[in-house]
Amino acid sequence: MTKIGIFGAAGYGGVELIRLLLEHPEIEIAYLGGHTTAGENITDLYPSLLGRIDMAIGESSLAALEGSGAEVLCSALPHKVGADIVAEALDSGLKVIDFSADFRLKDAAEYEKYYQPHPHPELLAEAVYGLPELHRKEIIPARLVAAPGCYPTGAILALAPAVKAGLIESQGIIVDSKSGVSGAGRSKVALAFHFPELNESMKAYSVAAHRHTPEMDQELSALSDEPIQVTFAPHLMPVTRGILTTTYGRLRQPMTEADVREVYQQFYANEPFVEVMPAGIQPTTKQVNGSNNCHIGLVVAEDTGWLIATSAIDNLIKGLSGSVLQCLNLMIGCAETTALDRPALWP
Amino acid sequence: MTKIGIFGAAGYGGVELIRLLLEHPEIEIAYLGGHTTAGENITDLYPSLLGRIDMAIGESSLAALEGSGAEVLCSALPHKVGADIVAEALDSGLKVIDFSADFRLKDAAEYEKYYQPHPHPELLAEAVYGLPELHRKEIIPARLVAAPGCYPTGAILALAPAVKAGLIESQGIIVDSKSGVSGAGRSKVALAFHFPELNESMKAYSVAAHRHTPEMDQELSALSDEPIQVTFAPHLMPVTRGILTTTYGRLRQPMTEADVREVYQQFYANEPFVEVMPAGIQPTTKQVNGSNNCHIGLVVAEDTGWLIATSAIDNLIKGLSGSVLQCLNLMIGCAETTALDRPALWP
Amino acid sequence: MTKIGIFGAAGYGGVELIRLLLEHPEIEIAYLGGHTTAGENITDLYPSLLGRIDMAIGESSLAALEGSGAEVLCSALPHKVGADIVAEALDSGLKVIDFSADFRLKDAAEYEKYYQPHPHPELLAEAVYGLPELHRKEIIPARLVAAPGCYPTGAILALAPAVKAGLIESQGIIVDSKSGVSGAGRSKVALAFHFPELNESMKAYSVAAHRHTPEMDQELSALSDEPIQVTFAPHLMPVTRGILTTTYGRLRQPMTEADVREVYQQFYANEPFVEVMPAGIQPTTKQVNGSNNCHIGLVVAEDTGWLIATSAIDNLIKGLSGSVLQCLNLMIGCAETTALDRPALWP
Amino acid sequence: MTKIGIFGAAGYGGVELIRLLLEHPEIEIAYLGGHTTAGENITDLYPSLLGRIDMAIGESSLAALEGSGAEVLCSALPHKVGADIVAEALDSGLKVIDFSADFRLKDAAEYEKYYQPHPHPELLAEAVYGLPELHRKEIIPARLVAAPGCYPTGAILALAPAVKAGLIESQGIIVDSKSGVSGAGRSKVALAFHFPELNESMKAYSVAAHRHTPEMDQELSALSDEPIQVTFAPHLMPVTRGILTTTYGRLRQPMTEADVREVYQQFYANEPFVEVMPAGIQPTTKQVNGSNNCHIGLVVAEDTGWLIATSAIDNLIKGLSGSVLQCLNLMIGCAETTALDRPALWP
Repeated sequence: MTKIGIFGAAGYGGVELIRLLLEHPEIEIAYLGGHTTAGENITDLYPSLLGRIDMAIGESSLAALEGSGAEVLCSALPHKVGADIVAEALDSGLKVIDFSADFRLKDAAEYEKYYQPHPHPELLAEAVYGLPELHRKEIIPARLVAAPGCYPTGAILALAPAVKAGLIESQGIIVDSKSGVSGAGRSKVALAFHFPELNESMKAYSVAAHRHTPEMDQELSALSDEPIQVTFAPHLMPVTRGILTTTYGRLRQPMTEADVREVYQQFYANEPFVEVMPAGIQPTTKQVNGSNNCHIGLVVAEDTGWLIATSAIDNLIKGLSGSVLQCLNLMIGCAETTALDRPALWP
Repeated sequence: MTKIGIFGAAGYGGVELIRLLLEHPEIEIAYLGGHTTAGENITDLYPSLLGRIDMAIGESSLAALEGSGAEVLCSALPHKVGADIVAEALDSGLKVIDFSADFRLKDAAEYEKYYQPHPHPELLAEAVYGLPELHRKEIIPARLVAAPGCYPTGAILALAPAVKAGLIESQGIIVDSKSGVSGAGRSKVALAFHFPELNESMKAYSVAAHRHTPEMDQELSALSDEPIQVTFAPHLMPVTRGILTTTYGRLRQPMTEADVREVYQQFYANEPFVEVMPAGIQPTTKQVNGSNNCHIGLVVAEDTGWLIATSAIDNLIKGLSGSVLQCLNLMIGCAETTALDRPALWP
Repeated sequence: MTKIGIFGAAGYGGVELIRLLLEHPEIEIAYLGGHTTAGENITDLYPSLLGRIDMAIGESSLAALEGSGAEVLCSALPHKVGADIVAEALDSGLKVIDFSADFRLKDAAEYEKYYQPHPHPELLAEAVYGLPELHRKEIIPARLVAAPGCYPTGAILALAPAVKAGLIESQGIIVDSKSGVSGAGRSKVALAFHFPELNESMKAYSVAAHRHTPEMDQELSALSDEPIQVTFAPHLMPVTRGILTTTYGRLRQPMTEADVREVYQQFYANEPFVEVMPAGIQPTTKQVNGSNNCHIGLVVAEDTGWLIATSAIDNLIKGLSGSVLQCLNLMIGCAETTALDRPALWP
Repeated sequence: MTKIGIFGAAGYGGVELIRLLLEHPEIEIAYLGGHTTAGENITDLYPSLLGRIDMAIGESSLAALEGSGAEVLCSALPHKVGADIVAEALDSGLKVIDFSADFRLKDAAEYEKYYQPHPHPELLAEAVYGLPELHRKEIIPARLVAAPGCYPTGAILALAPAVKAGLIESQGIIVDSKSGVSGAGRSKVALAFHFPELNESMKAYSVAAHRHTPEMDQELSALSDEPIQVTFAPHLMPVTRGILTTTYGRLRQPMTEADVREVYQQFYANEPFVEVMPAGIQPTTKQVNGSNNCHIGLVVAEDTGWLIATSAIDNLIKGLSGSVLQCLNLMIGCAETTALDRPALWP
């Protein structure tokens, strides 16, 4: 039984991790740390947890964590806020999985471009990008894992096999993502997320300017012979959970859809959470919601030579807390799918 | 390990039971029977199950079921369609849980009033109404359990403690329920459930004429000294899952809300799936969606003397397949909460 | 051409009035007053108005209004905030329609019970409750009209014919309303209205304690020989617009539904915005959304003796700004239906 | 006063045209023709129209239309079904606006590729593509106007200025559209549009294979020196109305966003229904829903050289019946904006 502590436990990422861990036979939640919520019981904030957990929220500080016996810290604190705590936790001998963007980018300059000067650049080399489908071997022994952004998870999984196999040109890749509103988090209460303002509406935002773009570039470039710079347009759709990502890459040479599918199926042959849809079937976000699955659809536009690869994930599970748990399972040496191999809720 | 067969497996009730059973350590799904879907793999219909189960759907017939080794039949066939099969299954020594309305009412005349002449009235005396909160002792040894209707589950749980304790008058009870659309099932594809027709809309239907009314009357009357006839108005709300039930009963004598709450808390003290909300808190369907929980809210209208008790359930879990599994656990002698004690998904 | 000014123009009520007035051939919008929004163009806040109006928002003060030539002030300021301004406007010779609760209740003590000590009790006797179906004659010559609350509009229209004709008992009337989220307004940005928190969810709130209750009591009592005190349970449904109100009243004597319908049809025979549905048809909020219509459904529960009357309105039109415009048309002597007789958007 | 007849009046396109025409001072609805609905009153199908129109639906046949005095036929019959009727109507001296795909494509071979052999290829040369922003001069004197598809309207308006001015490469243009479900129509009641199946879900469909693609190619090629073949991926989003189209075109030469915006603003300078959003603002479907407006957003991805132009329309108005009315106004010589210049409903 491994004891873990969760900081930032009262946000959507934190509470989703709690929910998943309640089914985990080998992990015990030893401590919950909050920010403005310290002092409350987690069930006061989330009555959905009534009867399943009864635990007060403390401070998100290592001093407070001490004594709980936690061996791993899952920090769902916002970017920058948690960086010092992460560093301190590593110093004190804990393993850390960080939900934020702080340790995802290898290049501190890229981080600074989208966020601010990096508070702990010395940790960047060691930090592992927590996408098991690409970095399983490094995650297992890691001290510090950075959970990928939700958009990059969907985009990278949709593009990785094609990029790795050199099927598509490295220039001109387009990522058009459609996200549910829970991606905004619980603390971002704002007019933009006021129900009447976005219900029954769709819009693009942060087009070609979103902070998740350099993650996609970093991970896809690492799979390619040439540097990759995607053009990324995120959209906000009026649903709670789910990201559908539609990617467009130009095939280097004409290929049949069947041949492309074969490449994808081989790439993901041993992955427990990635399914490549058969010909003619497109994934839907609903069929992965509530699960750690990523479903992928493939179409070759024969007339114009584009490969259109789509992916569907639950942004709070495969796109966040499920991914964290997948890494955590690897880090503590238990089966990777533990407490994660449930199907989505339907309908 | 108990082997079970599911008939009508391809409907929303069937697939939800499959989903729940995939987590169950002591039950094995031995057979899936469909109707129009025989011959397909369950994952063709529900890609949400990809990677979690791989099973072809056969006929919903005992001949086909034979050989699977199933000891229990869960029949999610529509009412009337399955009654003969249920009778036949009992004859062949199987235990049966029936999702339909066929064996819920003790009085064949009441059944005939809302449905048709009862095909197997001889089984009505033996059949147990599968609401563990009221009938746990009879469910344990039962051969035939009838899963309650979704609306009655919400209404009865909201009213039972007040009725049992004689807090409210037996005359004039009102049940105003708001249901998600999944209650209509998967096979009822009709203009009424065409997305653009009911999205962003709310309406009442079958007011004072719904088939679930006699179930409420039967079960509440059994708790009371006097016969009870509720006035029931169901409503269709534009959400997928959930039933919120608002009940109104006139207090026989002035009582404080705190005293009423005490009665409810005692009534449900040992129930693993019922939570009585504290003062000032109303349940929401979201906080139970995806779970087998029923949350109850209580308000006393001091000026007018009404007790307003509300309940929230997931219509496909506590209102259907979760309830079935709760009964199944009891019938096969395993812990009642097995594979059911998960919190709702939030958000 | 009548010139009007709108204070609180940047809220949902204000902008809906602007939208309606843009089609009005005899009214000119002369001034828009805001609060925190002064200085912005109304199209900055509502791009939906681009190309249809181009007007800067000023202060919501009479000094600022002066010079616009406005003869009527529509004040959509929050309750209490606008009361002094209303009084001042009347003094300066303007006619006023107030969107807030300040001048709806005749009894200052009732107002104080739900709000605060009334700032201008001297105006209560003169103020007219702006529901044309009940007070058309008083609205025409009025100086001060108080627009009804959205819930009371739905409840009163559903109950008035039955109460007036003495069909139902004055005691024990129940009002169970289901409202869209736009009723919360634009300025109430809060966790409770954060999209992920209430999407796909339903709940009751302020049960037997909502501020709109005394309005219902006042208006229904005025139609009855006996004082009426309803029991009111509002619910929040995850849609943007619409209120469905389900009312329950006990019939004094057995009556057929057809006879009740006849009473309702006669009561509303000359009303341009109220439709009584034929037998077997229930109204839906969708079929009135975007219109000033109120649709009413009627069912008699023969077994239990309750009359269940339902009504559907668009909370921002018939429940707010449409009602205001209906009064305004009456007050300025133009056809009551001007700019209001449009059907709902479907689907 | 021009009299018109509407065939296929009972579908979403038909009823939306009726709704718009109810406000039109110079057009009279003289006849409604249905298919399976003949014999019913339009208000039986659409209670939203109660009190605003009272007209029985007849057959969709010229024999039946005769005698109504209609001078123009608006045919909202499905593609192919109406082609003979359109030909017959032209022969009998009527002007025709056709909602279907039958007369949109100039090339019968292209039509056959996506539909079937063209039943009336002799009319293709004469038929005018009914997008006033591109073909106003031809629409005015036309006998036969083909209303554009909903997706092409959004895509063409987003791309036309850039294509016309040669800002983007003719090869490699991508159109990623997100549509509301009403685009499927009222008669397509199917599991795919069953509320529980697509609520809270998002998916791509008919990727690189949708019938609307050749319309985009035809109209954009006509604006360009080089033939254009777009890659089109439509998506179904769980909202009722609205299409958001995100287009990607590679800039031939580096340009600032401001310069691109200038090109767009000039292109649409005199258009009453197209608004180019200012820098930093993206359109939302909500802000055009219920209106005939098209809002356009522009971003230049400086790093990668793509122009991302987005457009938002109401698929049933600017994408269908509003566009028809815009053409009709032009054809009968009344102001183009009559009964169309209303803002969207907000919220």
